[in-house]
Amino acid sequence: MAKAVFYHAGCKVCVNAEKMVLDYLDPSKAAVEIVHLGEQRNRIAEAEEAGVQSVPALVIDGNVFHMNFGASLEDVKKG
Amino acid sequence: MAKAVFYHAGCKVCVNAEKMVLDYLDPSKAAVEIVHLGEQRNRIAEAEEAGVQSVPALVIDGNVFHMNFGASLEDVKKG
Repeated sequence: MAKAVFYHAGCKVCVNAEKMVLDYLDPSKAAVEIVHLGEQRNRIAEAEEAGVQSVPALVIDGNVFHMNFGASLEDVKKG
Repeated sequence: MAKAVFYHAGCKVCVNAEKMVLDYLDPSKAAVEIVHLGEQRNRIAEAEEAGVQSVPALVIDGNVFHMNFGASLEDVKKG
């Protein structure tokens, strides 16, 4: 099964995207982990390494899908 | 069941996002329609009305999720 990680920072854009991911992603095909980078700042480096440039972003099997460009990772770092 | 429409314009970014949507969206929760705006230009107005500003974008139940900002709708119109 694919591993999906949804990175967000708690903004409204993020929350909507998170709802979409949780509501519509097929749980039998991808196990979704939700990571709030504002609260789990120790995972920002991991997100960057995966190619995440802004949040919300969904990483599935190494592919990064940025959604709606809510906030750049640079802004989250300033935080 | 929710109706999901995935708008794209055939670019590489779009194709990757399309694969993600088709592979991981739960078919029991959302029926996905794929619309290539480069080929189905008569649907650009409908996409705009739904709030699509760039492709690839996924519209589910009236919520628009722009992905990776591959191409603005203005560019597709010039197309």
